[in-house]
Amino acid sequence: MGASKVNCTIAVDTMGSDLGPTEFIRGLFHAVEVLKLDCNFVLVGNGRLLERLLKVRKLDAYSDRITVHHSSQVIGMDEKPIQALKSKKDSSMAQALALLKNGKANGLVSCGNTGALMAGGTLRLRQIPGVDRPALGIIVPSKKKPFVLIDVGANPESTAENLVHNAVLGSNYAKAALNLETPRIGLLTIGTEEGKGNTLVNTTHLLLQKIDGVINYAGPIEGFQLFDGDVDVVVCDGFVGNIVLKSSEALFGFVGSTIREELVRNIKRKIGAVLAKSAFRDMKTRLGPDQHAGAPLLGLRGNILKSHGSSNYVAIANALRITREVVMHDMIDSIGSEINQANALINNPEAEKAPE
Amino acid sequence: MGASKVNCTIAVDTMGSDLGPTEFIRGLFHAVEVLKLDCNFVLVGNGRLLERLLKVRKLDAYSDRITVHHSSQVIGMDEKPIQALKSKKDSSMAQALALLKNGKANGLVSCGNTGALMAGGTLRLRQIPGVDRPALGIIVPSKKKPFVLIDVGANPESTAENLVHNAVLGSNYAKAALNLETPRIGLLTIGTEEGKGNTLVNTTHLLLQKIDGVINYAGPIEGFQLFDGDVDVVVCDGFVGNIVLKSSEALFGFVGSTIREELVRNIKRKIGAVLAKSAFRDMKTRLGPDQHAGAPLLGLRGNILKSHGSSNYVAIANALRITREVVMHDMIDSIGSEINQANALINNPEAEKAPE
Repeated sequence: MGASKVNCTIAVDTMGSDLGPTEFIRGLFHAVEVLKLDCNFVLVGNGRLLERLLKVRKLDAYSDRITVHHSSQVIGMDEKPIQALKSKKDSSMAQALALLKNGKANGLVSCGNTGALMAGGTLRLRQIPGVDRPALGIIVPSKKKPFVLIDVGANPESTAENLVHNAVLGSNYAKAALNLETPRIGLLTIGTEEGKGNTLVNTTHLLLQKIDGVINYAGPIEGFQLFDGDVDVVVCDGFVGNIVLKSSEALFGFVGSTIREELVRNIKRKIGAVLAKSAFRDMKTRLGPDQHAGAPLLGLRGNILKSHGSSNYVAIANALRITREVVMHDMIDSIGSEINQANALINNPEAEKAPE
Repeated sequence: MGASKVNCTIAVDTMGSDLGPTEFIRGLFHAVEVLKLDCNFVLVGNGRLLERLLKVRKLDAYSDRITVHHSSQVIGMDEKPIQALKSKKDSSMAQALALLKNGKANGLVSCGNTGALMAGGTLRLRQIPGVDRPALGIIVPSKKKPFVLIDVGANPESTAENLVHNAVLGSNYAKAALNLETPRIGLLTIGTEEGKGNTLVNTTHLLLQKIDGVINYAGPIEGFQLFDGDVDVVVCDGFVGNIVLKSSEALFGFVGSTIREELVRNIKRKIGAVLAKSAFRDMKTRLGPDQHAGAPLLGLRGNILKSHGSSNYVAIANALRITREVVMHDMIDSIGSEINQANALINNPEAEKAPE
């Protein structure tokens, strides 16, 4: 595992995704050959199958930095997280987590069971001191530039303190993955017209003002501003974030299918569609989920990236790329220090004036 | 006001919208001449201006069922709701509310200040007995058929009981506006993967199961299913609903602007775009907000429809159409009876087992 010059080894849970290890190896090929990722990879899963797939893709030439770690079990998408982790100690996910825990890898990518990955990650790696609950951050395209939406589902029952931590986690992730120095942080709320947010968000707003300086707090933003790109991080609780993310993906698909229906209604439109075909492909590349198809579970003492269960090879390659960036930015130390500063500021006596 | 054969008189607050009374009169023209709405209208606003605009559109021919009610003041979009209502008793909104309150109209449409309309509606008309908080419902297109999303912003701090009431309100609205006999009700939540909703939604789910029969409860739905059209009503709190609605509108605009950018990148695409132009227009007509650009404030003893501040004439005409449907369906009595049944079922001793 020594040929890579960078100190980055990614454990890859190749099993348990919808498309299976074949797509994973295709993604790895894309990552190594096209994106030129220079790190080490430990592929965890059915050893014999993985060796064969590596050969087919001629990735065995990289045997100095691509290795296989055999595991005999797989955690299915519908299994109960804790139960599955306990009963399947030789599953690819449990084994990949063990590699991360034991320092044999410093990043992990999985497309498997989200609940199991979150539970396993939290149990095996523990939170960074001061962080109460981990959060899932994801990169979303906008009119101007991509932004981080956090939390998209790890913690559906947030306190104001959790949301403040999400702001710190998201800020660090934006620095690492979007290469920004002082990302602008927005808090997702609803308009003044309708009565100005709710208690949770209004309390969070006061706390975020207190930690401005630790992070760069730009204030509340509304749903209609979400894709404007005026902020680099949008903070919300996991319930709202998950619904926004999934309903946006659904709407994107719905708009696409409606356009396709309309474009075949008559011969003139059909010809137009053929001529403009590449425009639709480029639009899909720009806005579709494949470019940023990984959500790191932030706030843990280890870099875990959850990728969509149905990730294709492009999405997988990009997940590997993002994981590398996160590992190289040494985000965990930086998060630890900023969380300490934030907690000190929001827990000082003045903070008690804020409504709870 | 006697020429219309139907017992439906709509008070129209023609002031306070972004596009002003001119667009309102254009919308009224569309409603009467194209949609053939057969009800009476009382236009509230600057009397002299309205009379002139009616003449320009030759709507003075309908003087037996289109009348003008002069008011000297306007509530602006940025005014504080309660304060504005108190200080501007001769505003078009306050006067329109008075017409509704005094039985001189049985429906009201306004594009003005949402907060003022909600506060004024609640103060003047009061809730239907048993309803704690009113909710804004809106009709949204989907792959199969339109559905009602409720609440989109009236109540950002909901209890489980509020959400149960939203289900009853949404069910009645779907019957009236979508012409359904037993609308299927879904509860918006997040996936089992991420840990199954939150306490509010899980409590609501138990209560909705108890009132199945009063409404037709189909169970929880996730964000990714939102535009599938498998349910006729999607229930959520006003914070989530407002963010979903506004971010969806924003995403729709963002996808549109991205397609437009891509379609002008080269001459081939430009020609394709010209040939396929009507397809984009039809897509926009199918999915854009103009077809259903009104959100009734449900749960009050009167039919108030809030239309978007920037509604164009098509949206205004459709808002008038929906208001007529709501008035003709005599929704208020039906809501009152179902709310009583629902409250009896969720407040019986067994219901206390549900976590609060």
